[in-house]
Amino acid sequence: MPTPGKDLDRLAAYHRLQELSRTPHDLTAAGGLAPERLARYRCRAAGIDLLYATQRVDDTVLDGLQALADESGVIDQFLSMKQGAVLNRIEGFASENRQVLHTACRDIFSPQPLAPEASQQARDELAKLRVFLSELDNQTLRNGKGETFTDLVHIGIGGSDLGPRALSIAMAAYRLPQRRVHFISNVDPDDAHAVLQGLDLSRTLVNVVSKSGTTLETLTNEELARAAFTNAGLDPNRHFLAVTGTGSPMDNPDRYLRSFYMFDYIGGRYSATSMVGAVMLGFALGYDAVIEILRGANDMDRAAEERDIRKNPPLLLALLCVWNHNLLGCETVAVLPYSQALLRFPAHLQQCEMESNGKSITRNGDPLRYASGPILWGEPGTNGQHAFYQLIHQGTALVPTEFIGFRHSQYGQDILIKETTSQEKLLANLLAQSLALATGQENDNPNQRFSGNRPSSVLIADRLDPYSLGALLALYEAKIVMQGFLWNINSFDQEGVQLGKVLANRLLAHMAGRSKDPNYDGSETDRAGWALLKAAGMLGDREPRGKGQSS
Amino acid sequence: MPTPGKDLDRLAAYHRLQELSRTPHDLTAAGGLAPERLARYRCRAAGIDLLYATQRVDDTVLDGLQALADESGVIDQFLSMKQGAVLNRIEGFASENRQVLHTACRDIFSPQPLAPEASQQARDELAKLRVFLSELDNQTLRNGKGETFTDLVHIGIGGSDLGPRALSIAMAAYRLPQRRVHFISNVDPDDAHAVLQGLDLSRTLVNVVSKSGTTLETLTNEELARAAFTNAGLDPNRHFLAVTGTGSPMDNPDRYLRSFYMFDYIGGRYSATSMVGAVMLGFALGYDAVIEILRGANDMDRAAEERDIRKNPPLLLALLCVWNHNLLGCETVAVLPYSQALLRFPAHLQQCEMESNGKSITRNGDPLRYASGPILWGEPGTNGQHAFYQLIHQGTALVPTEFIGFRHSQYGQDILIKETTSQEKLLANLLAQSLALATGQENDNPNQRFSGNRPSSVLIADRLDPYSLGALLALYEAKIVMQGFLWNINSFDQEGVQLGKVLANRLLAHMAGRSKDPNYDGSETDRAGWALLKAAGMLGDREPRGKGQSS
Repeated sequence: MPTPGKDLDRLAAYHRLQELSRTPHDLTAAGGLAPERLARYRCRAAGIDLLYATQRVDDTVLDGLQALADESGVIDQFLSMKQGAVLNRIEGFASENRQVLHTACRDIFSPQPLAPEASQQARDELAKLRVFLSELDNQTLRNGKGETFTDLVHIGIGGSDLGPRALSIAMAAYRLPQRRVHFISNVDPDDAHAVLQGLDLSRTLVNVVSKSGTTLETLTNEELARAAFTNAGLDPNRHFLAVTGTGSPMDNPDRYLRSFYMFDYIGGRYSATSMVGAVMLGFALGYDAVIEILRGANDMDRAAEERDIRKNPPLLLALLCVWNHNLLGCETVAVLPYSQALLRFPAHLQQCEMESNGKSITRNGDPLRYASGPILWGEPGTNGQHAFYQLIHQGTALVPTEFIGFRHSQYGQDILIKETTSQEKLLANLLAQSLALATGQENDNPNQRFSGNRPSSVLIADRLDPYSLGALLALYEAKIVMQGFLWNINSFDQEGVQLGKVLANRLLAHMAGRSKDPNYDGSETDRAGWALLKAAGMLGDREPRGKGQSS
Repeated sequence: MPTPGKDLDRLAAYHRLQELSRTPHDLTAAGGLAPERLARYRCRAAGIDLLYATQRVDDTVLDGLQALADESGVIDQFLSMKQGAVLNRIEGFASENRQVLHTACRDIFSPQPLAPEASQQARDELAKLRVFLSELDNQTLRNGKGETFTDLVHIGIGGSDLGPRALSIAMAAYRLPQRRVHFISNVDPDDAHAVLQGLDLSRTLVNVVSKSGTTLETLTNEELARAAFTNAGLDPNRHFLAVTGTGSPMDNPDRYLRSFYMFDYIGGRYSATSMVGAVMLGFALGYDAVIEILRGANDMDRAAEERDIRKNPPLLLALLCVWNHNLLGCETVAVLPYSQALLRFPAHLQQCEMESNGKSITRNGDPLRYASGPILWGEPGTNGQHAFYQLIHQGTALVPTEFIGFRHSQYGQDILIKETTSQEKLLANLLAQSLALATGQENDNPNQRFSGNRPSSVLIADRLDPYSLGALLALYEAKIVMQGFLWNINSFDQEGVQLGKVLANRLLAHMAGRSKDPNYDGSETDRAGWALLKAAGMLGDREPRGKGQSS
């Protein structure tokens, strides 16, 4: 097994950067944003340009960041990850001890993939998916009445929901005619009901996604959905698909029309390009579009191996994050896509970043002496300009921003008003924000003064299509993983979600106890939990809870 | 005009709180979360309970926060706001100089409203809305073919979009049969196209919302939508509604089937309960539901006048925000509703909080010496538990959280699994998170250790219905306004959005110039802007931009 990297504050390059961070590049100075700088501070991979002239870095800082990347061995670690090293572990303590091979499931275009076994498993599942989709297309697979399937309900949560949902919304423009997809994730019963009530279940497939096959929310929603099919006189086993780990409680092909597999070397938040996303996307967009997403992702995965930080967009973004977060002291990062189709992309990245890097110990189990993962948030522009941008421009907090844009629209349906198209207005606004944040503006009225020196990056591609979406997703996945290497943390586990689960089960036991026996009292065994239930009015002392309909 | 308040750091109570903040209440200590504390640290208004035992405060700190509220005169300022004081201003500098009367548009249930003129204007518009809706209901208002209207497209952005959209999604369970609403906000042409392509325009109304009547995105989308109607052989003037300020360029009843008015004393981000939200909500839910939303909001507005902080949920939440943000040093706040119907509620609050309080100067125009508005973000639970909660539990950043939950589901369609309903699972998870964050947990494995002392509040009501939604909205509006009073900032303007607009227009002029004349060169007049367009590949040196279809 590989040795974990060094802690960030043990790297000589980090101390050099700390010195440099006392006088970061002044974007508001005369010549602070010179044309030569704007032309030179950009790099490109897999069709995506990264413009970073509006970051508070100069060539000296970039050299320092290059030294940081070299000294921490981030690219070596990235390569060893792709080759199957057991990087999901904490040295010297019980941990998941798994490989991290989400990149393998798109490393399917070369005769010599970096992790041959995992890539072969990916190819096998894709072959099954291709057969399934072609049976849907050529109508050999139909419902009990001989009709085609028109709708698919995707049931999952967390990594089995946010990524697939973000990609599905992003690709709505490419949907096959007569194919619609829907999502249920929350244990909130209203979520499932709102989706199911509008569907013709006889022509609906349900895709249940859970690696462990034990996810409370997903199994609860599967039961709710199965009950709806049964109540409609339909056999759920002929409508339900499974995406799960081999050997999980859900790995029971008798209960499913088809079963697809995911593997323990792919974490949920990195699983969008595995069967977790591919089954739903294949139904909605067709097989070829799925392959294009994988091709874009794989091209970016390859580009991310580059050691020169000025030629490697994900690595450079990761280093700029460390610069802004650890050295300039910014606690958050905002991802702001100028594309309504990327509406839910920030929510997916939020999960991917914060679940990966929201950690407090190193890969050796020592407490961190520096900040790890930032809080990532964001909404599409230009909407955000009419909302929270006020704070980004004039607030007391410094928010580094990552803008995402596309030169062309998806539908090509546009309108010329005042000599420019809507797409041009969209892009002009994106670029103008980047400029305004950087340069600021003096004014005699203090309320109309902009301090500037607020850092941003711009990611721009030609069009949001399956290929560029795959590349963009892989860019962020690589960035997040590389940040974890720089912080020397394990970006692949999520122990922080466990305590809440344990306490929820304890509270549920009280609720179940109380509903069986009105004299049940949990105050002896669980003083705080019982008192909290009582304070929340959940013990019937305010009004009955109402059990709804039971199955 | 009223004198602005005192700066936060000029208040004696603030200095006392600074001392207390060195040893905040330890929630992880034995007895740190005693049943007596859980029972006592809660308050209630308009059907909403606020539980705050899991905040790092004790009675001494609460007394200090009470002194802070008293000394800053926050309730007096709130009352004078509701009575029509000109609070949207910066003393001694050019500013908007407007009243702030969003509360007046729900102060319609009393014979003696606090701001009679504004409340009368609200009543007049409601009366017009009632007539319009009854004409739709009794089918005296129909389309050219004599059919009823089934769909309404709401076009707005920022305050004219996020609030209405959040409320619409929240109330989907209460929609009238055969009524659907849709939203277009982004200048992204794909946004408009994706909505319009699925509709039977002949049975569709379009509600165009812009106070100024000059919002670029909204007017562009109106033109796109009008072109779609014209192309379908329909007269847009018989399908389009306007919500705008009197005298705005959109105040032209000839072009609209109906016009409703908003007034300059209501800022966009506070306008959801004015006609900005009411027209769309009335179409979707009926007039009575709109009145119930207003009733809930008004009841909370009244409760917010209470001077005892322990009996005033919005005031207490505002003070706890100052405690966590200014005194314990937390940069963000997460709003986490355990209700899928509140999916977009955090995005609305994000706007309301960050556009209101993301400021750097006091109401006297002096630079702030303390942090103003936090970054507000959030997603529904339990989904978030499978995503970013990892960082909230175990990250290096401290994130105060505000949980929102309901004792009953909206649809009442539930399922018993392992003796509890889904709704109970949802609530158990919410409360368990609050407990887990507070108490933490020791463990020999450092990766399974939870430090605890991570503060949270719980807002809980019986059911998410029009009344409680109105109350919840008003609770947050009051909280945000009160925070602004405490920071002594103007929470009602948004000068920070101006610079980006100016620069966007400059870039658009370059694009228009270039499309008319391939030799156009903006590098002389605008070195940085022109170079940025070039670096972004927007000047045709990489490939043609593709103008899409022009009108």
